[in-house]
Amino acid sequence: MASKLDNALEMIAAAKKVAEEIGTPMVISVVDEGGNMVASQRMDDALLVSVDIALNKAYTALAVKVPTEALATACAPGAELYGLNTTDNCRVVIFGGGIPLVQDGKVVGGVGVSGGSVAQDVQCAEAAAKKFEELIGA
Amino acid sequence: MASKLDNALEMIAAAKKVAEEIGTPMVISVVDEGGNMVASQRMDDALLVSVDIALNKAYTALAVKVPTEALATACAPGAELYGLNTTDNCRVVIFGGGIPLVQDGKVVGGVGVSGGSVAQDVQCAEAAAKKFEELIGA
Amino acid sequence: MASKLDNALEMIAAAKKVAEEIGTPMVISVVDEGGNMVASQRMDDALLVSVDIALNKAYTALAVKVPTEALATACAPGAELYGLNTTDNCRVVIFGGGIPLVQDGKVVGGVGVSGGSVAQDVQCAEAAAKKFEELIGA
Amino acid sequence: MASKLDNALEMIAAAKKVAEEIGTPMVISVVDEGGNMVASQRMDDALLVSVDIALNKAYTALAVKVPTEALATACAPGAELYGLNTTDNCRVVIFGGGIPLVQDGKVVGGVGVSGGSVAQDVQCAEAAAKKFEELIGA
Repeated sequence: MASKLDNALEMIAAAKKVAEEIGTPMVISVVDEGGNMVASQRMDDALLVSVDIALNKAYTALAVKVPTEALATACAPGAELYGLNTTDNCRVVIFGGGIPLVQDGKVVGGVGVSGGSVAQDVQCAEAAAKKFEELIGA
Repeated sequence: MASKLDNALEMIAAAKKVAEEIGTPMVISVVDEGGNMVASQRMDDALLVSVDIALNKAYTALAVKVPTEALATACAPGAELYGLNTTDNCRVVIFGGGIPLVQDGKVVGGVGVSGGSVAQDVQCAEAAAKKFEELIGA
Repeated sequence: MASKLDNALEMIAAAKKVAEEIGTPMVISVVDEGGNMVASQRMDDALLVSVDIALNKAYTALAVKVPTEALATACAPGAELYGLNTTDNCRVVIFGGGIPLVQDGKVVGGVGVSGGSVAQDVQCAEAAAKKFEELIGA
Repeated sequence: MASKLDNALEMIAAAKKVAEEIGTPMVISVVDEGGNMVASQRMDDALLVSVDIALNKAYTALAVKVPTEALATACAPGAELYGLNTTDNCRVVIFGGGIPLVQDGKVVGGVGVSGGSVAQDVQCAEAAAKKFEELIGA
């Protein structure tokens, strides 16, 4: 059985492949079921701000159990969770690019991507999440 | 006379009972009049983000002396307290689920619940606050 | 099978019983295998500083995989890990009262106690750890 | 010319190889000349505390321009830099396992390893630093 780290590296490779295709350097991070970092990589010339954002998107997806893009609407002014992004020591990221990793119906980790437009970040994160599903045979 | 801790544990038990009835695992926290934790419990499979949020809802209710749901409107863009949630080291939570504990007309603590929808969090927090009133014979 | 939270509450009860016997109010905290809080309780009149210390003793025991009392010597001036206590956002506590929880040879959590002398803290933490072994049938 | 990220991944692979040989799971991190993370990996079962320490050893080696093991003596009570470890938001690690990366006489990055004894951490970090020298043809 592949290690958690090997799986994370394959997921990151899948996201990087998409990032290279679209020509935008990204930071890609994976956390485990406890919210702790397994692996993180910053592609050359990726935005420095993305080091924190990618990791915290991964954390948020795990800690809230939804893709981070689902939070944008829920946290808008007037919506139910307005203000969520300043909780938990500001680790909660409320725009797209973080996806929970689900195995046997349980959230067991998260992947986060940052560096491009939100749509690009989501596209790369989805490639990583798809790779995870392949790796666990889902 | 029951200890503060025993009272907090009974309040948490009351909130947990509701959480079990509605089938959503919660984190429930109680703070005293100094804003310091008395007790906190994370039900199995509760969102990790809720560990911080439940405690800070309890803190906010005590520190601002209103239920946290009252802050959503007051902190909306254009409203009087816009930006409150980023003060006090971002411990201020501005959506529902935190309730101040009142004894003899004085705020003496707070209870906070996180893990479900805001309505569910409020429902659990109210069960805890009601238990507090029973315990002090109010 | 008992829930993680129920186990933590039984561990805390075991530590509290010892704390009451020796007449010193304590804070007792339990974290899971990801280092996240499961439950924490502050006995009436326990030192406020202990809220942070108990939780971080539990975290340290999990994160370093040794009882925290083993770190005192290792972190003394001139010793190998001098300076360890200021790493990891100062969450590393290097005096006794934190014990890793071991199941099937793997560290799956930690318990931390603070409020008395180090010897008293250790005594209470050991009662909690012993309860954990009973609960898992070790 | 290889990318910074590719170089970092080769350095981490070299450190991991040594970690596997000595049978101790490690966290290995690389930062660039700005002190920002390029890549970080946590081997399965590595100490959670090492996530922060490995990154900050890499940062410290870059930021102070010496191997972190050189700081232990300099920061001892009575020595010139006593207290250095609590500066810079406690990012300064003063025991071995962080090594500056030097190119053309200039410090251009740092590598940090944490998870074993200090001697083991240093051994792995040296393997990474040696790989860096190979990669730049030094």
